Amino acid sequence: MSKGGILVVKVGGRVVEDSEARSTLLDLLASYKGRVVLVHGGGSLASEISRNLGFEPTMIEGRRVTGADDLRVAVMVYAGWLNKVLVAELSARGRTSIGLSGADGDLIRAHKRPITSKGIDFGYVGDVDAVNEGLLQRLFEAGLTPIVCAITHDGNGQLLNTNADTIASEVAISLAKKGEQVQLFNCLDKPGVLLDAEDDESQLSELSISQYQELKQSGAIYQGMIPKLDTGYKALEQGVEQVRLGNVKGIPSGGTLLK
Amino acid sequence: MSKGGILVVKVGGRVVEDSEARSTLLDLLASYKGRVVLVHGGGSLASEISRNLGFEPTMIEGRRVTGADDLRVAVMVYAGWLNKVLVAELSARGRTSIGLSGADGDLIRAHKRPITSKGIDFGYVGDVDAVNEGLLQRLFEAGLTPIVCAITHDGNGQLLNTNADTIASEVAISLAKKGEQVQLFNCLDKPGVLLDAEDDESQLSELSISQYQELKQSGAIYQGMIPKLDTGYKALEQGVEQVRLGNVKGIPSGGTLLK
Repeated sequence: MSKGGILVVKVGGRVVEDSEARSTLLDLLASYKGRVVLVHGGGSLASEISRNLGFEPTMIEGRRVTGADDLRVAVMVYAGWLNKVLVAELSARGRTSIGLSGADGDLIRAHKRPITSKGIDFGYVGDVDAVNEGLLQRLFEAGLTPIVCAITHDGNGQLLNTNADTIASEVAISLAKKGEQVQLFNCLDKPGVLLDAEDDESQLSELSISQYQELKQSGAIYQGMIPKLDTGYKALEQGVEQVRLGNVKGIPSGGTLLK
Repeated sequence: MSKGGILVVKVGGRVVEDSEARSTLLDLLASYKGRVVLVHGGGSLASEISRNLGFEPTMIEGRRVTGADDLRVAVMVYAGWLNKVLVAELSARGRTSIGLSGADGDLIRAHKRPITSKGIDFGYVGDVDAVNEGLLQRLFEAGLTPIVCAITHDGNGQLLNTNADTIASEVAISLAKKGEQVQLFNCLDKPGVLLDAEDDESQLSELSISQYQELKQSGAIYQGMIPKLDTGYKALEQGVEQVRLGNVKGIPSGGTLLK
């Protein structure tokens, strides 16, 4: 029996926190026939809990910084509540799942981001060094669907907050490097990459890298999309077979295909 | 090669939250040669966070009840922060660990406790139905140490708060029933079962079930110890080879041995 490919889906906190969007996501994943890795971020719940606990998210020069308190909330919300809700609800749909942070089974090793040349310390933020894709393979063999949150560790006991787009891309690359056919789907609020952020009808069904470079230079691509597209194209270059960006309903073969 | 036995250690929130006690625990587990399952509770951090979020723990007739907000905090603290700190710190000591709630890989299936005959609804509290010990075996085979928090699920997408002593005992029993030699160590603040709660010197090195029944009837056994001893004797009856209760420093063969 062919094992078929692996679908890596990344969703942001908004999808996970909205029970209707979450249902759509989990129904789609439950009915999907192949192997799946779900990667999720955190989102507004972490900020809300931080505020309720009496501390505002730390910002330096408009960029969010992860202090010790922020890290604790991120781990509680991402690895705790959101991860376990996804695990329980996807398992209930017949796809038995297992939730993982990057610390679990040494799945994702990272290092604390160095202080920038401008002297900015982002705090407990991790940049990914290695993905233990052998663990994912073992979990697949056990019939389990890994659900990975955006927390990593440094191997010396320190947990680190890590960008979920990067995690999804690095997970996809690590599996592709082992000869797996990997498809990466990055969920957006929008139905895909738009030429006009205000007009869903302007969605591109495909986007080539040269076209992307032009659109980036002309300023037509919405700022928040740039890191998602950059990690998407990196995944393509490093052997991931197909990369798409679209909304939840587009999983697995809708949205915008990167070329 | 003989695989040797399995040591199941249960610790409460106080050990996990105190960095010195936690270090002692993790150093001991890291240097232990055999297979280990660590089960942990939550403790004061959950109450502290609940209070900081503006809600007092719900109590009915002096018993704690798990409302929807309490459950969310319990999952955040037990499955999120405490579990991942233990995983990262034990892994850093060379014993690569994987954190699990009962929902992960369907490890522990439970049902919501029914409303009592007196009409008390304990809320999102789960009583254990089944342990998937096959998952633990697979994780051992992968060279991983499972760290299990006191959250379970009902198989229909509902997470449930569950007593950590019960989880440790049920995990130990499930492995013993598969022919494993299992040792259960339940960590207390005290060095073992005491004849006089105020006097550590009154620690019993052994306690037989008949002696326990006498001490319980005479009121000599401290109230909080009774459920721990009851689950301990249940584990012994159901095939667990050795059950001990003692403080962290007593792991694996100190404290009070149940007979």
